[in-house]
Order: sequence, then structure tokens, then C-alpha cells
Amino acid sequence: MRMLDLIAKKRDNKELSKNEIEFIIKSYTNEEVPDYQMSAFLMSVYFNGMTDQESTDLALAMMHSGDVFDLSLIDGIKVDKHSTGGVGDKVTLVLGPLVASCGAKFAKMSGRGLGHTGGTLDKLESIPGYNIVLDEQSFIKQVNEIGVAVIGQSKNITPADKKMYALRDVTGTVRSIPLIASSIMSKKLASGADAICLDVKVGNGAFMSDIEEAKKLAELMVNIGKLAGRKVKAILTNMDEPLGFSVGNSLEVIEAIETLKGNGPKDLETVVLEVGSYLIEDAGIATKDAAMTLLKEKLDNGEAFNKLIELVSAQGGDISFIKDVSKFKKASRIIPLIADKEGFIESMTTIDIGLAAAYLGAGRETVDGQIDPAVGIVFKKKIGDRVMVGDVILEIHANDKGIEDAFNTLKEAIHIGSKKNDVTLIEGVIV
Amino acid sequence: MRMLDLIAKKRDNKELSKNEIEFIIKSYTNEEVPDYQMSAFLMSVYFNGMTDQESTDLALAMMHSGDVFDLSLIDGIKVDKHSTGGVGDKVTLVLGPLVASCGAKFAKMSGRGLGHTGGTLDKLESIPGYNIVLDEQSFIKQVNEIGVAVIGQSKNITPADKKMYALRDVTGTVRSIPLIASSIMSKKLASGADAICLDVKVGNGAFMSDIEEAKKLAELMVNIGKLAGRKVKAILTNMDEPLGFSVGNSLEVIEAIETLKGNGPKDLETVVLEVGSYLIEDAGIATKDAAMTLLKEKLDNGEAFNKLIELVSAQGGDISFIKDVSKFKKASRIIPLIADKEGFIESMTTIDIGLAAAYLGAGRETVDGQIDPAVGIVFKKKIGDRVMVGDVILEIHANDKGIEDAFNTLKEAIHIGSKKNDVTLIEGVIV
Repeated sequence: MRMLDLIAKKRDNKELSKNEIEFIIKSYTNEEVPDYQMSAFLMSVYFNGMTDQESTDLALAMMHSGDVFDLSLIDGIKVDKHSTGGVGDKVTLVLGPLVASCGAKFAKMSGRGLGHTGGTLDKLESIPGYNIVLDEQSFIKQVNEIGVAVIGQSKNITPADKKMYALRDVTGTVRSIPLIASSIMSKKLASGADAICLDVKVGNGAFMSDIEEAKKLAELMVNIGKLAGRKVKAILTNMDEPLGFSVGNSLEVIEAIETLKGNGPKDLETVVLEVGSYLIEDAGIATKDAAMTLLKEKLDNGEAFNKLIELVSAQGGDISFIKDVSKFKKASRIIPLIADKEGFIESMTTIDIGLAAAYLGAGRETVDGQIDPAVGIVFKKKIGDRVMVGDVILEIHANDKGIEDAFNTLKEAIHIGSKKNDVTLIEGVIV
Repeated sequence: MRMLDLIAKKRDNKELSKNEIEFIIKSYTNEEVPDYQMSAFLMSVYFNGMTDQESTDLALAMMHSGDVFDLSLIDGIKVDKHSTGGVGDKVTLVLGPLVASCGAKFAKMSGRGLGHTGGTLDKLESIPGYNIVLDEQSFIKQVNEIGVAVIGQSKNITPADKKMYALRDVTGTVRSIPLIASSIMSKKLASGADAICLDVKVGNGAFMSDIEEAKKLAELMVNIGKLAGRKVKAILTNMDEPLGFSVGNSLEVIEAIETLKGNGPKDLETVVLEVGSYLIEDAGIATKDAAMTLLKEKLDNGEAFNKLIELVSAQGGDISFIKDVSKFKKASRIIPLIADKEGFIESMTTIDIGLAAAYLGAGRETVDGQIDPAVGIVFKKKIGDRVMVGDVILEIHANDKGIEDAFNTLKEAIHIGSKKNDVTLIEGVIV
């Protein structure tokens, strides 16, 4: 088999076989296929797409390029979730303890990633002492004992995906649905869960702003997961404004804690309950409707919150911070953004809200960039809310970095007008 | 300017500016842009094409990536030709002396190239002593004195094209009309001729077998040339069988000599006269019709043949070989291919005839491969000819190499049937 012929085959829009896809991924990971051939191949995929079978074969080949976790030593059905990423997305922090409190096994390996705010790992690390590095044995033991663990991904998970992603990033081949789907699914499949719920964000703060495109991505990922023998569902959730009120690492942890106590923002709770009820159903614990009731009960009776305490404690974190969120170090300055006209919050340029958080130091641009856990943004008003001149729309939590840029960016990002818009949070479900 | 953005622009089917194309070519030649970005760009061009203006800008940027020859010290209008390549194509060997004998200045730099048989340079080198390396000054002096010189291309001509061609060859991006056209035209423009006639081959022995595709290529090359301020015409000529009767290096030189004496094969002479009359017209020597008469006269009165003697003599070749072609070293064996049924030669798989010649050692696969000048194929019958059982269709001129492979390949490549087909040699003209 020659890579040149396989490039030509995809270029000519013919379907590649499982063997051919495995050859491509193996040879590329082994450095037998050079980057310049892989980039020509990826551009051909960009133009011609892939069938569901090809995408599945690609995800499986990438999955097998590195460590594949065997979670069979964990009793019961292991559940996992994945979000395609948005601003203020702290769903995992709430969902993990919550579904574990219902009896599901939430065995999550999280990537660190780059972005406007840190990933789940960075958020957890804003809790002093929280250790994201567990060996496989300890990880399995913890999930068996308390039902939940959230750790960093193994360095050797899906090396093919890491190499391909880095190449796609510099060759204009990121925005390809089969490549995005197989990249995500390779990591999910390698992480070993039996049931996965995907939270595909759609809107001006998400990677995909077009609902039809997001739907295609979700359907493909669900199909890949099913063809690979896993239970996979996807929900499409709106990202035309941040999820919840807080953006920033410890600010989001605090909001997650409040949500686990039953006092969270409505939108965040809705997404958590929707994802959670599918996971509880797929774990065989309850029907979807009964799962919804069960989840709400766990939020109200304190069991979900207690599970977070157990999780933080098991991974070495200081639980006094969870019990008393005032212990989290605060930013040195809190600067309000004041409404200068009357009306409704009509819309937000959500991607720019993420950018403003990054200016403050909440995110990182390079893998070894430092994050300031205290900084971020706390919204007082969201889309559809009425504002009067002088009202506080949001508060900027800042230390020394990026205040002016963040302020000006946020000012431009919030649009006040005469229309009272409504955000439809759950835009679709793929089961 | 960032290469990533320019890849994305072409991927999204937007027109690149002259500045952007110059940036791409300059940065790639300087190794500031890596192969993996260039291959993604080339694949985007493969899919989305280029406008005539983009193709022209690309050809000009590639032309300026290395040496550009100034032939202004040669008096009068300098003419050049280019063939896209076929089997048995010895047009340059006849055309150069012929148009020079009419007063045109034929200043040709030829590439060596890979292929079934050698290129023009290899053919000329089968004349003992013929020197293809002349410095610029000697080259100009020779054309001024005798009207013709055929030498090897400078090593530093269009280095961007060399790098890009090597990359296209391994990334499935060879068959792109704007890339082919700009590659050819960059070299032609850098070679400095004022008037160029392109011989675009079409048929099962050519790079392009589809007439529409070949026509597009020809039109684009003519347009690039015109936009670059040169006189350019193109003819589309059939390559569904070899041109002339001989395939192989010294065999083709012998056939070219016979043609210059007015005893050549009809098809070869027709192509030579067609290309030649356009060059004579563009050189301002005669109208197209008068040029045709003039060219025929020069073939008949021996002046074209004498010009070949002058050319070979000027470049150090042994003219006794030209005067007595029996001096060319012959292959050790001549094996006939005999017709095993009655009928007409209906068609030939011309590409395989080239392959058979390569098996015998007439071509090279790598740049430093050795060529055997004596070997090749001499046809006795061509398309439309009637054959009886036992007739000789062709003779294989072989030394020690590839006889069996060549014989079997040729046997399969010649198709005898009941239909008397006719080849239309000149399939179109783009002026």
C-alpha cells in the first residue's frame, strides 16, 4: 500500500477501506508517512468528507494508536461525557458528583486543552491540593469506591490524534466534520467508558455556530460510537451566551458548588440534568424520566454536594474550600460594566467574552502558559434581561493583567436593544 | 501575511492577489513555508482551481524564483516550442534546424526529464560529442551566428517549480490544470523567448487523454503567456499512436534527419510544419500560409538538413553521423512482432508502447539513470494500416535488457480489428 495512492483515492472521492485507514494512521504515527502527505490527505478529506464507516474506522485506528484503557475492573456501567467547548462550561464539575451520587460510575479522563478559560482540569486545580494525576490502578479503585474520578489524560492516549491535530491546526484542515468527530471519538473510545453523552455546543460562543453543521457533527459522533459498540447520545445545547453566570476558573468552581447544592443557575442545571438523565438511563439505573426526578432529588438532599466533597477529598483537595467558598482567593479588583442605555440584553458576542476572560489571564495560549485561577467575569444580566441605565451588567474580576482590553472587549460584546429575546437552551437530541 | 490564512483563502475558493501568490512562492522557495503547508495549499488548488490571473501570477512568481534569461542580445525575434510529452516525439530535433533555416532564432533550453524515452537532450547526446552545456554568452553567440542552439536548462531555472513539482509528485496534486500550466509557462517565460508555440499532446499516450481537458490546459497556457507579454500559440496534436515510426533515442535522431531531408513520416512532418509555420509567422518572417510554403521548400532544398549539420557542428557533435546515419551504433538484436490475425491496426495503447521502450533501456526512472541510445521500437504499421497474418507490425531493437517484458507489453498494446480507423492529427489550435 502506498500513501500516494490513498491520497489519490480520497481526492477522487472513493471510499477507503478499514485496512487502508489503519495503514494511514499507523504509518503516520510511526513517521513513515511524512507530514506533507498527511496534510494533502487531510485537505482531501476536508473537501470530499468521509462516510460514517470511514469516520468510524478512522476513530478506531486513532484510538488504537496509543493507550486504550480497560475499565472492566470497575463494577457496572462506566459513563462519560464530552463537551465540544464553550464559554462558562462547568458541566463536568457538577455532573460527575451528581451522577455518581445516583450510583453511576463516572470515570473521566480530561484533556487540558487551550482556550479562553482553562479546561476542567484547570478548574479543579484551583482547589488547593487537588491532584489530577492518578495511575490506572488508583483511578479504578477510586471509581469503584466512590463512583467518580476526574483525572488528566494519559500522555500516550491517541498519539495519532495529537500529531494530526497539530498538523490540521497549521494547514487549514480543522473544520472538517469527519476529522473533528473522529478526533473526539478516538479519545472517548480510548478512555474506556461504556456510555457516553456528548454535549455539542452551538452558537456564537461555540466552535460551530450553525445548527445544521452541529447536528451533523453530533449525528456522526453518535454513529461512530454506536458502530464501535458503545452507548452514545448527544445533545445540542445553545452557546449564544455563557453557560451560567461565571466565567473563570475558581469562579466556575464556586458556581458548580452552588449548583450541586441546588442553588445553581437555571441554564447550567438544565444542561446538567439533560446530560445526567441520559447517562443514568444508559447506566441502567432508571428510565429517563425517573432519572430526572432522581437527579433533582440528589441536588436537593445534599447527596450530590457530599459526593463532590468525597471526590475532592479522594484526590487530595482541600475540602474546606468546598464547604466555604469564601476561602477561594479573590481577584484584587472587581470592575463593573454599567449599562449606558435602557432596554433588554438582546445578544452577546460570546466568543469575545471568552477572549476577554483570556485577556485577564483565565486561559492559556500555549501548553505551558500560566493560568490565574481567580480572574474572570461574573454576569448579573443575561439575554432577555431588562436593564436600566446604571445597572451592573457584569463584573470583571481582575488582577494586574488585561483589564483595559477585557473591559473594552466586553463593552462591545454585550448588545442592548428593544427586543426581549429568548434562548432555547436544548436545541436538539441525537439518540 | 500568514501561509495558514492563504491556504484557507484558496480552500474557501477566494481569489488570491498577486502579492499573496508571490509571498507563497518566495516563502516556499526560501524554506520559510514547510512542505506540509504547501501540500495543503496545492490540494486546495487541485480542488478549487485558479483564475487565469492567479495562474499567470503563479507562473510569473515561479519564473522569478531563479535565473531569468535575457536574450535581448540575440538579434530579432526569438522563438521556442514546448511539448507536453508523448511517445516518439522528436519534433524539436526537426523544428529547430528547420525554422532556423528560414531565418527564425530558435533559442531552446531543454529539460532532461524522466520518462519512457529520453528527452530532447538525451536524443541529441546519442550523437557522439554533442555538448548540451553552453554558458549564456556562447549560447547567445551561437544563436546569433547560425540561428539555432539546443542546450540543457540552467540548474537554477525556476527552483520554486522544481520544489513544487517534486512535492506534487508525492501528494497527488500533479493533475491540476493551473499547476501544470504555471509550471510549464514559468520555465518557458524564464527561458526568454519572445514567441512560443506549445504542442499539447492529447490521447492515450499523452499526459492528457481528454480533449476538453487538453484544450483547457492549452488555453490557459496561451493566456498566461499573453498576460506575461509574449506571443503564444498552442496546437493540440493527437497522441493515440506514437509520432512517426521510431521510438528510442538514436532511432528518433535518424528519423529526424530523414525528415529534415524531406523523407520523414507524414504525421511528424505535419506537426513540425504546423508548429513551425506559427513560429515563422510570429517571428515576422512570413504569413502563416507563406511560412508553410517556405518551410516545405527548406525541407526539399536541403537547407534545413544543412542547418542541422551546422547545429551539431557548433555544439561539438560528430557530423559524420548526421551525413551517414549507418554510423549510429545499432542494438544487438532486432525482434519482429508478427501479426497473428488479419485486419486493420485499430488502435494502440500508446502509453504501454512508451513503457516497452523503457523496459528496453530507452528511458530512465531516476535522474541519474543510464539510457541505452540504441534500443527502441520501429513501427512498420500504424493505425489504419491493413495487416495480413505474418506481417511485421514493428521491430524491437534490443540489447540485453527487458526483451521479454517489452515483447509481451507490445503484443498487448497493438489492437487488430475489422475497423479502418483514421487519426486526426491536429485536433485544435489556440491562437
